[in-house]
Amino acid sequence: MTYRIVVPIFENITALDAVGPYEVLNRLPDTEVLFCSETTGTKYTDTRTLGLMATHAFTDIDRADVLLVPGGFGTRPICEDEVWLDWVRAIDQTTDWTTSVCTGSLVLGAAGLLKGLRATTHWSELDTLAAYGAEPTQERVVEQGRIITAAGVSSGIDMALVLVQRLMGDEVAQAIQLAIEYDPQPPFDSGSLAKAPQSVIDLVMAVMADRKEKEAAAATN
Amino acid sequence: MTYRIVVPIFENITALDAVGPYEVLNRLPDTEVLFCSETTGTKYTDTRTLGLMATHAFTDIDRADVLLVPGGFGTRPICEDEVWLDWVRAIDQTTDWTTSVCTGSLVLGAAGLLKGLRATTHWSELDTLAAYGAEPTQERVVEQGRIITAAGVSSGIDMALVLVQRLMGDEVAQAIQLAIEYDPQPPFDSGSLAKAPQSVIDLVMAVMADRKEKEAAAATN
Repeated sequence: MTYRIVVPIFENITALDAVGPYEVLNRLPDTEVLFCSETTGTKYTDTRTLGLMATHAFTDIDRADVLLVPGGFGTRPICEDEVWLDWVRAIDQTTDWTTSVCTGSLVLGAAGLLKGLRATTHWSELDTLAAYGAEPTQERVVEQGRIITAAGVSSGIDMALVLVQRLMGDEVAQAIQLAIEYDPQPPFDSGSLAKAPQSVIDLVMAVMADRKEKEAAAATN
Repeated sequence: MTYRIVVPIFENITALDAVGPYEVLNRLPDTEVLFCSETTGTKYTDTRTLGLMATHAFTDIDRADVLLVPGGFGTRPICEDEVWLDWVRAIDQTTDWTTSVCTGSLVLGAAGLLKGLRATTHWSELDTLAAYGAEPTQERVVEQGRIITAAGVSSGIDMALVLVQRLMGDEVAQAIQLAIEYDPQPPFDSGSLAKAPQSVIDLVMAVMADRKEKEAAAATN
């Protein structure tokens, strides 16, 4: 039977959260990576210029071997949406692994799946994770039994390689790393709070605060 | 005026080639990242389970500040498609930067834009690049004047950060790296031919040869 990896997507998703792991996991033999949502159709990122297709509706998907919940500003309404949370809880009952990238972990938290567990998310949202009864940590990939959470955005690639290692061993994980030529050489080393200069941290926080303010204003209109 | 980055997409695209750079570049201020194709509509990866939306047709796009051509098995027919190549040549005339990820560089090569230039692509296709008059190199990001080519799949993230550095300076590039928490920690160090064990290289080559054989058989049917 085809191994089934399911990625629920939504409006205002962060595309790389979903596509990074997809690019790793779709290369597994006898495996399908399916994209679904409450309803089928194109779901756009927050810039509205990139759309990903949900080919399946929640009603089409009643089980998964792996559930992978991506993040993005769109997770905020989902954390209060009982249709979403009920579906996540039901699918989680069927999985070998339940996983998240970035603020996807807030959805797992809202569904009650992270209580008492160490977990991670985007560095800017660690406090929110604590509110769901998880114990936040800044590690990049956090395994707790069959629950794996990953840090912000690009961390999903690393998480997916760890998952491949668990599913099919070291050699397959290394082969996929080579196939996607994942030999990172960023021009700087500022990818975490511990490494970025303070002026850079201040700049990102200012942009995010501005963004949150606009979101809040839009929500009350 | 909004700075315009244009990403042409197609059937059998490698999604991360396009979405990695998107996730970096969409965070630039006053910038739009547009996805286009010969016709609008959803373009699927080779697994057929992930679809990206082309919101614009070629006829809608007559200029770009940055052209970014992603790769994938779908570049093979494009390298012989005069509609595509004419459009690429015309847009290139208008850009500040013309760029590619993975086998996207073969499209630039087929359009005649790489003659006499050092360039890169996925490690498995360096010979094909030479056939277009380019000088293949295994560097991850290769700048030649206003042409930038990047190596396989995941290298587009590094290339996009280099591009941000050129466009807006070090601090903005570092801020975006922090925003997407790009602090790579793959579980192995096998992301290039120079680093992967021979058994892993053999495994990937066998899978790719099998894939090419199936493609060739499908093309003759």
